[in-house]
Amino acid sequence: MAGSTFGTLFQITTWGESHGKALGVVIDGAPAGLPLSEKDIQLFLDRRKPGQTSISTPRKEDDQVEILSGVFEGLTTGAPISLMVRNTSQKSSDYGEIASCYRPGHADYTFDAKYGFRDYRGGGRSSGRETIGRVAAGAVASKILNTLGITLTAYTRSIGPICADLSRFDVQAVRSTPTCMPDEEADQKAMEYLKECMMKKDSVGGVVECVATGVPAGLGDPVFHKLDADLGKAILSIGAVKAVEIGDGTAVSTATGSRNNDPFVSRDGSISKKTNHAGGILGGISDGDGILVRAHIKPTPSIFSPQETVNKKGENIEIAIKGRHDPVIVPRAVVVVEAMTAITLLDACMRNMTARLSYLTDFYQKTL
Amino acid sequence: MAGSTFGTLFQITTWGESHGKALGVVIDGAPAGLPLSEKDIQLFLDRRKPGQTSISTPRKEDDQVEILSGVFEGLTTGAPISLMVRNTSQKSSDYGEIASCYRPGHADYTFDAKYGFRDYRGGGRSSGRETIGRVAAGAVASKILNTLGITLTAYTRSIGPICADLSRFDVQAVRSTPTCMPDEEADQKAMEYLKECMMKKDSVGGVVECVATGVPAGLGDPVFHKLDADLGKAILSIGAVKAVEIGDGTAVSTATGSRNNDPFVSRDGSISKKTNHAGGILGGISDGDGILVRAHIKPTPSIFSPQETVNKKGENIEIAIKGRHDPVIVPRAVVVVEAMTAITLLDACMRNMTARLSYLTDFYQKTL
Amino acid sequence: MAGSTFGTLFQITTWGESHGKALGVVIDGAPAGLPLSEKDIQLFLDRRKPGQTSISTPRKEDDQVEILSGVFEGLTTGAPISLMVRNTSQKSSDYGEIASCYRPGHADYTFDAKYGFRDYRGGGRSSGRETIGRVAAGAVASKILNTLGITLTAYTRSIGPICADLSRFDVQAVRSTPTCMPDEEADQKAMEYLKECMMKKDSVGGVVECVATGVPAGLGDPVFHKLDADLGKAILSIGAVKAVEIGDGTAVSTATGSRNNDPFVSRDGSISKKTNHAGGILGGISDGDGILVRAHIKPTPSIFSPQETVNKKGENIEIAIKGRHDPVIVPRAVVVVEAMTAITLLDACMRNMTARLSYLTDFYQKTL
Amino acid sequence: MAGSTFGTLFQITTWGESHGKALGVVIDGAPAGLPLSEKDIQLFLDRRKPGQTSISTPRKEDDQVEILSGVFEGLTTGAPISLMVRNTSQKSSDYGEIASCYRPGHADYTFDAKYGFRDYRGGGRSSGRETIGRVAAGAVASKILNTLGITLTAYTRSIGPICADLSRFDVQAVRSTPTCMPDEEADQKAMEYLKECMMKKDSVGGVVECVATGVPAGLGDPVFHKLDADLGKAILSIGAVKAVEIGDGTAVSTATGSRNNDPFVSRDGSISKKTNHAGGILGGISDGDGILVRAHIKPTPSIFSPQETVNKKGENIEIAIKGRHDPVIVPRAVVVVEAMTAITLLDACMRNMTARLSYLTDFYQKTL
Repeated sequence: MAGSTFGTLFQITTWGESHGKALGVVIDGAPAGLPLSEKDIQLFLDRRKPGQTSISTPRKEDDQVEILSGVFEGLTTGAPISLMVRNTSQKSSDYGEIASCYRPGHADYTFDAKYGFRDYRGGGRSSGRETIGRVAAGAVASKILNTLGITLTAYTRSIGPICADLSRFDVQAVRSTPTCMPDEEADQKAMEYLKECMMKKDSVGGVVECVATGVPAGLGDPVFHKLDADLGKAILSIGAVKAVEIGDGTAVSTATGSRNNDPFVSRDGSISKKTNHAGGILGGISDGDGILVRAHIKPTPSIFSPQETVNKKGENIEIAIKGRHDPVIVPRAVVVVEAMTAITLLDACMRNMTARLSYLTDFYQKTL
Repeated sequence: MAGSTFGTLFQITTWGESHGKALGVVIDGAPAGLPLSEKDIQLFLDRRKPGQTSISTPRKEDDQVEILSGVFEGLTTGAPISLMVRNTSQKSSDYGEIASCYRPGHADYTFDAKYGFRDYRGGGRSSGRETIGRVAAGAVASKILNTLGITLTAYTRSIGPICADLSRFDVQAVRSTPTCMPDEEADQKAMEYLKECMMKKDSVGGVVECVATGVPAGLGDPVFHKLDADLGKAILSIGAVKAVEIGDGTAVSTATGSRNNDPFVSRDGSISKKTNHAGGILGGISDGDGILVRAHIKPTPSIFSPQETVNKKGENIEIAIKGRHDPVIVPRAVVVVEAMTAITLLDACMRNMTARLSYLTDFYQKTL
Repeated sequence: MAGSTFGTLFQITTWGESHGKALGVVIDGAPAGLPLSEKDIQLFLDRRKPGQTSISTPRKEDDQVEILSGVFEGLTTGAPISLMVRNTSQKSSDYGEIASCYRPGHADYTFDAKYGFRDYRGGGRSSGRETIGRVAAGAVASKILNTLGITLTAYTRSIGPICADLSRFDVQAVRSTPTCMPDEEADQKAMEYLKECMMKKDSVGGVVECVATGVPAGLGDPVFHKLDADLGKAILSIGAVKAVEIGDGTAVSTATGSRNNDPFVSRDGSISKKTNHAGGILGGISDGDGILVRAHIKPTPSIFSPQETVNKKGENIEIAIKGRHDPVIVPRAVVVVEAMTAITLLDACMRNMTARLSYLTDFYQKTL
Repeated sequence: MAGSTFGTLFQITTWGESHGKALGVVIDGAPAGLPLSEKDIQLFLDRRKPGQTSISTPRKEDDQVEILSGVFEGLTTGAPISLMVRNTSQKSSDYGEIASCYRPGHADYTFDAKYGFRDYRGGGRSSGRETIGRVAAGAVASKILNTLGITLTAYTRSIGPICADLSRFDVQAVRSTPTCMPDEEADQKAMEYLKECMMKKDSVGGVVECVATGVPAGLGDPVFHKLDADLGKAILSIGAVKAVEIGDGTAVSTATGSRNNDPFVSRDGSISKKTNHAGGILGGISDGDGILVRAHIKPTPSIFSPQETVNKKGENIEIAIKGRHDPVIVPRAVVVVEAMTAITLLDACMRNMTARLSYLTDFYQKTL
């Protein structure tokens, strides 16, 4: 079953396992003429690096990207852009014993059920390393969106019960704090909380939020390609995400219409909304306001406490997972959520260019 | 932009506006040999009928489905199944005045932004009537799933602050109560609450939940076609849904790993999970447990209280919406959520049939 | 298996069988703002009507199209355009006896092999009436292409051994002659030839050619979406077509490079080719010259001479097909070839709008 | 515009330019459990190697494939299979002067028209080296087809006017003769003819034929996914192919129905056809007979004779192409045609598995 391709006009195909030779992505449909270098992509990849703080695994993942095709003399050519990262520091020996049992919260059992066996080294295709291709493609999408005036910012909204206070929003903090929270005070509390978790040999979940500004009205489609739906699929396709919200999200179910509706207002000849409960999307189509997406991420399933489970022989056993595992996935997922949002928005930007007959006639009679 | 087709192997294409001549769906990829009559589909369509209770609009929508193709002598032939419902009782005159202004919470503004103008009669393509095609296709998908041993049940989980108590779960109540709640006590409270809302000229949101039982392990794919992601897209593509949860959903973000992980257990030679926080999906692939999906639905945007907004000339105005509008969308969305879940699961069932080489060799050397 | 949808951005889904209730098409992705009426489509449908000449079946197919959705106040809205033609004059009784045997050259055997049984009335889904949806969609595509300055002309190039002489090309003749040849002299010879065929209870094949002028350079893509490949698929998806040629087509295999290469020439600041062996496509991308496509159509498989075949019981039998059947499919296929070419070119026009980054920036910073 | 992905369930995405760092393919949807090594793929790649005979360019293309993902302990895992071939012996200096002019018969002009500029080194994305990814994927598809009992044989049918005599068909000769003809006598004549061409500084076209045996009845779909149409697209997507034929192909247009129809015959309880004018496909669906596809390939556009053309400044100039170019593309295209046929047939095999409800019920109630 082919399931590693995402997008319609800006289309990415990822490949690779955590302990294979390499991981990568083929980006098909990127427009010609974009200045692109490995440095552009490396900046994004470096944001998902572990081994940098006390809450991150001491694994050294020195992921260096290589552009294999689609760029000529510093510009994209319109041909597919193939990006590859070699696996260098993976130690398969760490994973030997998990080959024979089903770790709770992991995909071991379901892979065996689907494929009959699995690449058990470090999660194989279901490893967090699979996101390398997404992030690399997200770097390209973001660069294009920036030229269109669209900017994305993702950050950790909460870790366990500790929530960032957005009234203290500090965009610098997102990149400088170990939790990627935009609020240094919350970051410190979250770090305390994580240390407790680690002492209890436990792990914890959290929330990543992504805001896109400068998005023109008109992206998305009224039915199955609703922008909400495409973003939802993008975000829920990230491992460990179990819920996605647009705008007020789950809060709409207890809201009243008088509170949830955003009044339109006209100021200086331009129309906007007084509030943004809708998260920038009405009827599946962007309304010109900021797009707001929220991803709920489950706790790292690898915990050091003993757990009940079953081995491949069908025997009930107890396991205590060893190795190096972060107590929280959230900070490393921030750039992944941003990347998937960028890829989805760019595709919607491209698809929107044929919404009106006048767009076609203008293009073929004037632009071209 | 083509956005009215959903699915890969079981593929549906919906069409139609609330006040056009008709609405319908083309189902492509349904296997040959399924007994199918208009009655099978009508049963589902009748579940989304309004005009039946005090909280429903007194509009009479007597939606009669017609099978136009794809069925011969009572069996599907493998050819596309075209289903149509004629619009009969729509009164365009009710909607005349909304042509010139942007109703808060509606898609009026975004349609104008995207297409330059809009079919303003009753929401046009963004009307709730667009779901007729989904529900009709869902009836076919459900019938096929039933032959595979898969059963779906959707119900209203909550309306505003009133939540059904699942310890009192009564599957009959889902069909008999006006709110489609599985708990008669909660239904009565919700009806009280809705009456208050109507008196305040306001509306309210709620939550629909859908459970699928009998789903074999192995559906879905590890990366972009994660079953969570495909279900998420399906559910978020329904108008008014602003959040979707799988299993424990948003609760995972405050859970710990030791609580969120579901221990595997072996009993009598078969493996299952002791709990089901995962909602039946691990690593994007079904694990054999019940699939649980939850949709958060916003309050009906059409409320009778006066609201600030803007007209097409860009003037700030106040509007008070007239006509017939339900104070809550939720009960009528129940069958839509069930339909979209069924369509998604059936497609995943079909795609799963090529996951292993032995499936292909068995088929071509034994079955065929 | 879903196989009734064609196209990426301009996407059509056809449905219906020859003796079902109706046939139709859903056009998804048509831009908003196109003036469209049933008359526009009827003009194309009338071109595929039988019963008009001595070589056509005396069946009266009075195919009246109905627009069911997607058009409001005379303009397309961007929503899917659903078009339907009711079947009115089909007589199922004519086809009763073919239910139990496999007609040579027909799809009876393969449908049974694939689906286990078939709708045997008049070919069911494999009937020539399936093209109604294609032609209706082609009318819409052609109208859009015309606004972009692109014009299509399809005609009968040959019937059996009788070939139109293009030095006598008369565009009026295409519509006025019974063979749809652009050369009245050839038309008369072909009519003589067809009469002989009918006397021999035999049928004959022929060639349809389609020329598109005004096509800008740049349509198509270098690899799998080569314009040649997309046109080839479009044309070979028409029943009875067994070969497709682009430009010089099969003649290239015996040509030399010095003769087959088209020299470029610059005149008054614009670049063109001195010859057009390439049929307007180089490296899969349109070169600004006329696009030339040629379809080879097999003889009508329904012939009145006795033929050896097998019945469903596996007995060797002889059949003599009865009923009303044209001795040649070609004239009625002309508008189908034109329609499929138009649909393919329009989709390529739309997809080309994102080929360069400057197209996106121009659109989002200037046009929009 | 995304155009580098082919297939629905067995899906390939190719990337790379002739003078970039590498070329490759991602194969998504290959079933788990197939034994696969680099050797399996290398065998196919070696068949497209140049530099082996007097009619081949003396370029040494030592294309070594590397499996980067999707294989674990010698078996495919169901995850995407990423294959890469590093470019090693490409000399960019040879191509410097073509950067500024448009070679007749090449894609130089159309790439500039589409993308605004081009990677001019050796054809870039439109180079014959682009087929490396197709051939590598074809090796995998062929191996799977073989396990299903399907065998493919492609060969050179003709070069210029020299046609192989199939009554002398020798399958060994296909691999041993420099022309890949199955007839040694024709091979020698063709070699003579090619030498003359080279002396005249000219090039020549030819025909590749591919036969698939063991194909079960039932592959393909009645409308847009006709097996003819999918094969046609596959073959016409290969550079330099300008016509494609199925079975009798162009000959059907001058045939009569009585000659073109293949009589069915029942022998020992199984049904077959007495002749195979249809090339194994009736109504778009395989009929159990051998599938026959024919590709017409144009002469190598790079010829050493002086040619008229235009440079980027728009000046009329004369060029004489230098470097190393084969006088004929055909022998190296043989394995490419075979690969694309294999990929198409495998996808059709997979899609056919859901054609009947009983296939689904058997799978979910018995197989699984």
